Amino acid sequence: MSLLITGSVALDSVKTPVEEHRDLLGGSASYASVAASFFAPVNMVGIVGTDFPKKYLDLYRKHGIDLDGLQIADGETFRWSGEYEWDLNNRRTLSVCLNVFETFQPRLPDGYKRTPYVFLANISPQLQMHVLAQVTAPKFIVADTMDLWIGTQRDALVELLRKIDCLVLNESEAREFTKQTNLIRAGRQILKQGPKYVVIKKGEHGCLLFAKDLFFSAPAYPLEDIHDPTGAGDCFAGAFTGYLARADRIDHESLRKAVIYGSVIASYCVESFSLTRLQTLTQPEIAERYDLFKLMSHFEVG
Amino acid sequence: MSLLITGSVALDSVKTPVEEHRDLLGGSASYASVAASFFAPVNMVGIVGTDFPKKYLDLYRKHGIDLDGLQIADGETFRWSGEYEWDLNNRRTLSVCLNVFETFQPRLPDGYKRTPYVFLANISPQLQMHVLAQVTAPKFIVADTMDLWIGTQRDALVELLRKIDCLVLNESEAREFTKQTNLIRAGRQILKQGPKYVVIKKGEHGCLLFAKDLFFSAPAYPLEDIHDPTGAGDCFAGAFTGYLARADRIDHESLRKAVIYGSVIASYCVESFSLTRLQTLTQPEIAERYDLFKLMSHFEVG
Repeated sequence: MSLLITGSVALDSVKTPVEEHRDLLGGSASYASVAASFFAPVNMVGIVGTDFPKKYLDLYRKHGIDLDGLQIADGETFRWSGEYEWDLNNRRTLSVCLNVFETFQPRLPDGYKRTPYVFLANISPQLQMHVLAQVTAPKFIVADTMDLWIGTQRDALVELLRKIDCLVLNESEAREFTKQTNLIRAGRQILKQGPKYVVIKKGEHGCLLFAKDLFFSAPAYPLEDIHDPTGAGDCFAGAFTGYLARADRIDHESLRKAVIYGSVIASYCVESFSLTRLQTLTQPEIAERYDLFKLMSHFEVG
Repeated sequence: MSLLITGSVALDSVKTPVEEHRDLLGGSASYASVAASFFAPVNMVGIVGTDFPKKYLDLYRKHGIDLDGLQIADGETFRWSGEYEWDLNNRRTLSVCLNVFETFQPRLPDGYKRTPYVFLANISPQLQMHVLAQVTAPKFIVADTMDLWIGTQRDALVELLRKIDCLVLNESEAREFTKQTNLIRAGRQILKQGPKYVVIKKGEHGCLLFAKDLFFSAPAYPLEDIHDPTGAGDCFAGAFTGYLARADRIDHESLRKAVIYGSVIASYCVESFSLTRLQTLTQPEIAERYDLFKLMSHFEVG
């Protein structure tokens, strides 16, 4: 089955203690769509300016991503720049220029409206709901969010929670949103606010999947060299939803597998800047790392 | 097979944001020995003062712990008091009175010297080596440590690493000892300094087991209510070594299982203050939680 992905498309400038790169392909929709494309056909909804490089449109196309929903507006593309400290877990935003993104009104082409799987990547909850309102027969809706919306659009986020099946967010966001330091309480508290499933991403510590009758803890892949953590969370959620679209089945087994596939793609993403690593990623490499996840978390019965 | 455990025996005063208790049974050897006793017979080596309550000696005996190696010296027992913040991951030591522990010279009764499995719980690396020198036929030696020794007795700790089979330490200690922020690098770097195995404990994020040809990531049990984290790490390592003594087999399968049994006992430990919860813990409860660890980390092949 196909999946619809909406979110930001950006040109990123990223600085780490060892490298600096400008005008990289970035944005939550870019990362999520390329990640999802390894599992199912993607319909992308977003906006770019007339300065958006053709090479990045070609990159999307190479991954079979449908671009009918990508608006090209007069003006410049959304730009973000950020810097990572030595501990790559800490990121500082240096500048944000919304440009054409400021007035983005997502419009779904008719052909997108019946897409069964939906991933609302990180954009404002208002925009996420605006997209949802145009989807006519969703089977499973996943949404991501960020600290900014928790702080500034809490009511809209709470409203969104009642309309989706699964919320994906990171550890600090889960704590901030629920005011709970204990992540188990945080996850279960969000479940009570609407979604049937909650995934808390913990970076180097893996992630947790919560449902009323399910708790699943997935490890992180042991990486010694992380070059750029940008987009790892978007890749996780894109691949997670992409796998569910491929399986076209929402049960505990497919959800657990989706979490692992999400972790696999995210672990490849951070091996290089932007979407560089995913451009050469192959299905055998995905299968190989999935098997390694299995091996590193396996133990015999007691 | 039996195991030898040495470490501190203390009377603890512990304050959390909701409770405060005085003169609790504490110390690394206490926690580790009671935890290990669920798996194998324990020979304990430590020191207490004449003020040490008989009820705590009875508690050890109830767990079948051999006390021939517990010296009762003139003076007062080692006392520690600490306070936890709301985020129970942060602890502040309020006072430390070494008392009889200050001049502790561990002496192994003859009957202890051939104990095949050894756990050197957290005491100074000098004392840990002093104990090791008296052991005549060790099959497997596990040691724990703490930030204090990393800062003040680094050379002795490095020397100890060459004499043991497995080092158990927590996340922040691993980072501090190796000066690596990346835990995977930290674990592998310690492996190069002597021990065949390294376990990094990550509290609410589970733990990691490293060997030259093994990487195992174990989840943490999802606890909503942690009453007192004191001793969880000691319980983990005691049960880990205790299970290996019971299995009497050091291979990847038994090491992985030992990590899970360690996690099970630690998860029960934090449900109440001091060793209260472990006093009523049963084998069926251990088996039940082991099965839950299996369930919460299981996923099908890709």
